[in-house]
Amino acid sequence: MTDTKFENVINFGAGPAKLPLEVLKDVQKELLGYRDTKISILELSHRSNDFNNVINSAQATLRDILNVPENYHILFMQGGGTGIFAAIPLNILKTGTADYIVTGSWSAKAAKEAAKFGKVNMVLPKTSKYTEIPDPSTWKLDPNASYVYYCENETVHGIEFDFIPETNGVPLVADMSSNILSKPFDVSKFAVIFAGAQKNIGPAGVTLVIVRDDMLGYPMDVCPTVLNFTVMANDNSLHNTPPVFQIYVVGLVFEWIKRNGGPEGMQNFAKKKSNKIYDVIDNSGGFYVCPIKRNARSRMNVPFRINDGDEKLEKEFLLGAVARGMLQLKGHRSVGGIRASLYNAITEEEAEALADYMKWFHNEHTNNLENN
Amino acid sequence: MTDTKFENVINFGAGPAKLPLEVLKDVQKELLGYRDTKISILELSHRSNDFNNVINSAQATLRDILNVPENYHILFMQGGGTGIFAAIPLNILKTGTADYIVTGSWSAKAAKEAAKFGKVNMVLPKTSKYTEIPDPSTWKLDPNASYVYYCENETVHGIEFDFIPETNGVPLVADMSSNILSKPFDVSKFAVIFAGAQKNIGPAGVTLVIVRDDMLGYPMDVCPTVLNFTVMANDNSLHNTPPVFQIYVVGLVFEWIKRNGGPEGMQNFAKKKSNKIYDVIDNSGGFYVCPIKRNARSRMNVPFRINDGDEKLEKEFLLGAVARGMLQLKGHRSVGGIRASLYNAITEEEAEALADYMKWFHNEHTNNLENN
Repeated sequence: MTDTKFENVINFGAGPAKLPLEVLKDVQKELLGYRDTKISILELSHRSNDFNNVINSAQATLRDILNVPENYHILFMQGGGTGIFAAIPLNILKTGTADYIVTGSWSAKAAKEAAKFGKVNMVLPKTSKYTEIPDPSTWKLDPNASYVYYCENETVHGIEFDFIPETNGVPLVADMSSNILSKPFDVSKFAVIFAGAQKNIGPAGVTLVIVRDDMLGYPMDVCPTVLNFTVMANDNSLHNTPPVFQIYVVGLVFEWIKRNGGPEGMQNFAKKKSNKIYDVIDNSGGFYVCPIKRNARSRMNVPFRINDGDEKLEKEFLLGAVARGMLQLKGHRSVGGIRASLYNAITEEEAEALADYMKWFHNEHTNNLENN
Repeated sequence: MTDTKFENVINFGAGPAKLPLEVLKDVQKELLGYRDTKISILELSHRSNDFNNVINSAQATLRDILNVPENYHILFMQGGGTGIFAAIPLNILKTGTADYIVTGSWSAKAAKEAAKFGKVNMVLPKTSKYTEIPDPSTWKLDPNASYVYYCENETVHGIEFDFIPETNGVPLVADMSSNILSKPFDVSKFAVIFAGAQKNIGPAGVTLVIVRDDMLGYPMDVCPTVLNFTVMANDNSLHNTPPVFQIYVVGLVFEWIKRNGGPEGMQNFAKKKSNKIYDVIDNSGGFYVCPIKRNARSRMNVPFRINDGDEKLEKEFLLGAVARGMLQLKGHRSVGGIRASLYNAITEEEAEALADYMKWFHNEHTNNLENN
């Protein structure tokens, strides 16, 4: 193993996160004139035929690579995941009660927001220490809930579902902000899927919503128009001015994913990349520790502590990483330690570089400890 | 007068609209690496020091050029004007009643959205034909209203206020989406000012909100977090992931405005540009007609009809304009005819080119009519 140095940086940030260089170059190339319009994409009317092509082709590519059935609408909304946390109950909390499977800080925030609009049933016992997904046999689902909500991947804690919850017919809602398009899955199991773009599919400022037909038509009276799925579906996300630029970039990322093997290709990469890091952790004899139960480990965000949470050593690790161009590896302030985010745009070589540095760092400190 | 031809196009669109070429070039130049970060602005963490500099400097430039007093917060929100139509009542409809001065389709939409959350008092008689701002002596203001709402510039109808309404102490709320930073004004007369960026100050996807301290602290229970002014002010617009890219571009536009004489400079340009078009209209002997009462004419959006609304001739005008590279001149579908939008980034030369074409077109058709 070597102490590799990088000319360019590697952005391991949790989001906004790295985008494919090919996409960035395309954006840069046509920034002054979108295709043959001589108008920048930043100036393009959302009522123009050119923009209609942008949004329709983004939807078509997604429908293709994710096999989105015809009875699902693909929406591009604003306000990020936080906006959709409110939109979910505002649009589909028909019975007044909703089930929330809280496995980390994002699902906890979603549950808190939903409680503004109805009764939230906490499916799991309350905890602030998120390290696992309790076995479904222990879940307390309410058969009268309007929907069951969960977060597929918790970026702060590094917990990811490797199964789709069984809800016995109750509509299923998933926050896939941090793992959308990192694996194939059966869209028809879901009533609503949403994802802020800024991790796997684009820049911050647009939120993808995939909503099934039968979830439309009964928003609450107090649902703001910008959060109204029915209005957005009826007007193809063009009721008001959408984030034109982000929809354009997201469309380019969808095409990039398609060129690179689609969700299956991304799944393959994600497994390889995360395994590189988990392998170093698991072979470090406890020098590196990931607190998450093995079957709930995230392929997207790998959190770990060094030497039993030795903050001095963790600081040294982070400084050394920055010196080698590996950025944004600091864990979320609520959990501390290190966190490596390995979204779609992170290459295998980049994950390998981090794994190498981790091995080098471990080795250095073992030697130092032995020499002292 | 000549039949000028253009190598480049002129985008007279109502929004998303033309941006300063200097700004677009700066964005293009550093798209792969923001300043010395080697990270694209599209990948930059909103929790980074670099982004803190982006947002703080955008706010500082705006505070400087608009003389925003210290007791006002400058927020960057999502959801466009339509989002803020809901946010206004959700945040400040304390008494349950609000006054709406409806002078066009945008203020009408805002009033409709507000009615979801409380009682809306229509200050003016209902009309669908918006051609003037009725004299304030005829307004029916409610002294118990939580606020008085109006739209400074109606883009569809081309109506602009050239005065700030007197509300006798009731908080004043203004939608300045289409004329913000096109003139200096006294911010301290307002409780809330907001503006979707996509006309005068940036690309679609961010909404500027300037809110006075005393408007914070009493959102309704059903106010979604993303529309909550208090939360956004407390967290400097970073409660959730903001539209990083748009805030960056808006900051560059603020600097461009500052370099070009600030709001005073923009006012000077706006007057010259709109006068060029209105002069052609007024000197056309009725060939061109602007339906708006003179004291309410917009400097930003100039709507006009040709030859008593002769749709065949209007179509010919639009086709000839496109052939000359003058785009997006078609009037809004609800009013028909022609509309020239002359936001900050439109140059005097571009307005002159349109004026020249209008004169040429008028002349052609006068000759043709005489020859027949």
